[in-house]
Amino acid sequence: MREENHEKIQAFEPQENLIYGKNAVTELLKSGEAVDTLYMAEGLNPALAGYYTAMAKEAGAVVKRLHPQKLKAMCGTEHHQGVACYAATVAYRELSELMELARESGRPPFFVLADGIEDPHNLGAVMRSALLFGAHGLVIPRRGGVGVTPVVHKASAGASMRLPIARVANIATAVRTLKSNNVFVYCADMDGEPAFRQNLTGAIALVVGSEGKGVSPLVKSLCDGVVGIPMAAGVETEVDSLNVSVAAGVVMYEILRQRAEKEKG
Amino acid sequence: MREENHEKIQAFEPQENLIYGKNAVTELLKSGEAVDTLYMAEGLNPALAGYYTAMAKEAGAVVKRLHPQKLKAMCGTEHHQGVACYAATVAYRELSELMELARESGRPPFFVLADGIEDPHNLGAVMRSALLFGAHGLVIPRRGGVGVTPVVHKASAGASMRLPIARVANIATAVRTLKSNNVFVYCADMDGEPAFRQNLTGAIALVVGSEGKGVSPLVKSLCDGVVGIPMAAGVETEVDSLNVSVAAGVVMYEILRQRAEKEKG
Repeated sequence: MREENHEKIQAFEPQENLIYGKNAVTELLKSGEAVDTLYMAEGLNPALAGYYTAMAKEAGAVVKRLHPQKLKAMCGTEHHQGVACYAATVAYRELSELMELARESGRPPFFVLADGIEDPHNLGAVMRSALLFGAHGLVIPRRGGVGVTPVVHKASAGASMRLPIARVANIATAVRTLKSNNVFVYCADMDGEPAFRQNLTGAIALVVGSEGKGVSPLVKSLCDGVVGIPMAAGVETEVDSLNVSVAAGVVMYEILRQRAEKEKG
Repeated sequence: MREENHEKIQAFEPQENLIYGKNAVTELLKSGEAVDTLYMAEGLNPALAGYYTAMAKEAGAVVKRLHPQKLKAMCGTEHHQGVACYAATVAYRELSELMELARESGRPPFFVLADGIEDPHNLGAVMRSALLFGAHGLVIPRRGGVGVTPVVHKASAGASMRLPIARVANIATAVRTLKSNNVFVYCADMDGEPAFRQNLTGAIALVVGSEGKGVSPLVKSLCDGVVGIPMAAGVETEVDSLNVSVAAGVVMYEILRQRAEKEKG
């Protein structure tokens, strides 16, 4: 049963869509969506080529030069204006689908909400942890945080293709929806009661905040509880927080640990 | 007592040394050592300026232009060739000093050994975790891993200035030294017995490996034990490891958790 569910999760594949023309390619490269490769016609005006190369670099995309005839064949038209790329986007799920997957798994629901993580390495690392520690899915906001870009894909070591991901308009709304579905929503914060002094074995959603600002005040106020990470005695508060992906990983580990201990009895 | 020891740890300061002249600056920028700012004379040949700016960017250093007379005053000579920088290096400790700090702390020794971490963000994140979870120090190799570069400083959020760090010629030798001082050396590996099923409350050193290869076979063979991180049931082995800084953070958390539970009795 659990295996079957996992099969379903594995079936995700990136959807690839060819985009061509100067404006469309510019928009896509600037959007923060995942772009793996920018195809550029040989003989393109050097200023334009430089402009697109810089943007591609910024977006984490590789540049490949090819003969204009090849680009024409690829695009199926000669109106490509010398540039084209594939937009590799993750097949985002609805939050309701994530909840359905949790129900089907037969295990207590376990979701991770990333409230505005900006660094793609951190988001990728959070995805790896969520997948390994058995989360049913990750929820990220449509704005105010990095999406699933190529750097995130890479940093996630493949987890971005296997972990169900919902991209929602509003994290606060997602928190309310989860609560109304009997999921206990915790936010992770250094000053909360230590994770190991709380019972994390039930239906749970863990909200982790952005690198600089943590969980936003509105979202924090909606949470049912705050789960803290203990620090050693005598540590100064100047360095007062862990890397966000480490903090998220530690709490996810604690959730898995408590569930394993409970199953053992 | 504990506070006093912490005061001592805080006393670390970067040692700043002025380096000037084209060759010396080139060497320093390429060395991977920490460089915060590259000072460049106004009116420097544009090709040279471009060359040094690119190298500074690569090294994570900021470029500041200043009047040649100011640069002369700064260097105390006119033979600066238009470029100068401060090499900010961490005051590395000896492994024996780390052991001494542990003894003075009155707590069971707790060291972290990073066996070849290559990504500065990961090493910085490991430093933050080590400081917060109460490690007495970090041991890194002189070769085969990133040193304390400016990117590491930044990613460590200040922890690199507060956590005692020993840079050793050989991690295997460090493991032998620790073992002969009655420190139990564990390596972190996904396939070890889960952390929470092992007793981690005594004198301990935790070895974490590099991103791609994990802990090297020789070092692993010297370790007293392997501490594993549990995965949720049904997770495929294709994505078989956490981000190294997350894995390290999880085990450090587990060490702190067990010690806190033990103190509580």
